[in-house]
Amino acid sequence: MAHVPHLLVDGPWDWPQIALEEPVIHHLRRVLRRRDGDPVSYTDGRGMTGTGTLSDASLVRTGDEVVHVRGRTLTLAVAPPAAAARARFIVEKAAELGVAQLVWLHTRHAQGRPPNPSKAEQWSRGALEQSRGAWKMDVSGPVGWDLLPPPLLVATPDGEPWRRIESGLGPALTIAVGPEGGFDRQELPDHAGQVSLSTRVLRVETAAVVGAALALLPADLDSSPEMDS
Amino acid sequence: MAHVPHLLVDGPWDWPQIALEEPVIHHLRRVLRRRDGDPVSYTDGRGMTGTGTLSDASLVRTGDEVVHVRGRTLTLAVAPPAAAARARFIVEKAAELGVAQLVWLHTRHAQGRPPNPSKAEQWSRGALEQSRGAWKMDVSGPVGWDLLPPPLLVATPDGEPWRRIESGLGPALTIAVGPEGGFDRQELPDHAGQVSLSTRVLRVETAAVVGAALALLPADLDSSPEMDS
Repeated sequence: MAHVPHLLVDGPWDWPQIALEEPVIHHLRRVLRRRDGDPVSYTDGRGMTGTGTLSDASLVRTGDEVVHVRGRTLTLAVAPPAAAARARFIVEKAAELGVAQLVWLHTRHAQGRPPNPSKAEQWSRGALEQSRGAWKMDVSGPVGWDLLPPPLLVATPDGEPWRRIESGLGPALTIAVGPEGGFDRQELPDHAGQVSLSTRVLRVETAAVVGAALALLPADLDSSPEMDS
Repeated sequence: MAHVPHLLVDGPWDWPQIALEEPVIHHLRRVLRRRDGDPVSYTDGRGMTGTGTLSDASLVRTGDEVVHVRGRTLTLAVAPPAAAARARFIVEKAAELGVAQLVWLHTRHAQGRPPNPSKAEQWSRGALEQSRGAWKMDVSGPVGWDLLPPPLLVATPDGEPWRRIESGLGPALTIAVGPEGGFDRQELPDHAGQVSLSTRVLRVETAAVVGAALALLPADLDSSPEMDS
């Protein structure tokens, strides 16, 4: 069974055909060797997905579209790591796992600087397509603690075990992660909970991926994929 | 509070002092600027940890040592990704999270080759020290399906949701992940269960990290860190 390419195409879609940009066409035709009539799936990155076929330089919408409801709206707040490759990794993995927004967090022990915003947007879009998602992750910041949406959980090695708190979590959540040397206790907001994600001391990029995976793990009865592969 | 360096020093330790190798001494004294009498923690990578102090070219064992019982013995079987950086990432993150052994899996749609074994060992040792663990991850393979220890769970997008099966899992487990194009259904052993780790289609390195994090998440009542940070 051939893999069906999944495309992020900004909406709104007003016509039965959606024009595709030149690099997308090039990728579909030259790299993936797709032809007119071959199936593609697509999303607006805002919850809607559909299936269609390739035709000339556009895709033809052939079926009903679906609006996917998020399981949980997760904000991931991350102190940028010093190594640029680790920052990119965080963007890609968070977007792949379905994080709603990634916010670079300004902390007292900050080490790195956030990556270029347009590059981060590009990594986020690529990860959405690759993971066949319906919701694009936004990347913003750096911001201070006061701009993080509550409720807020801060990942620390000596926080409450995830298992002990997970059942009390609601449909919206912010998890803060990093920096490499740990948060300064004094800087944490009074309302912040503290959570432990592992028996080990995790690097910032590992804590980010683990926190996102745990918070976005589908509940038993609501586990349909965003888009069939 | 200064960070206490955590050292992997192969046992058995027969004397009150443990000699340290030259690169370790160099790192402690030149990079971390530690002096005689400064505290260090150490592990044999086989479950035992202790605390001591730096003295000349050795560490002095100053307290009782502790043998840590594993929460779960996890074997992670991974089809090597084509990109070497992703293979290294898998080794480092699996070791950091406390995977017992990483086994490169030979699959029909295999893309990459396993990294050099001595490099993988080095990454595993580094991740153990950095994450302050007590158990070193072994890396081996490539092997076929028949050499994986049961019970075996294969990560696939259309498997049973993790939440539905996690309560039935025992103290030893193998999770198989990858390759990029998916497993060939025909190659999966009859006894293998299939599990879904996300609502998204995950890359091999992401599935490896998520699978390890979920399987090694401490239960509510058994969540003490392997070594205090």
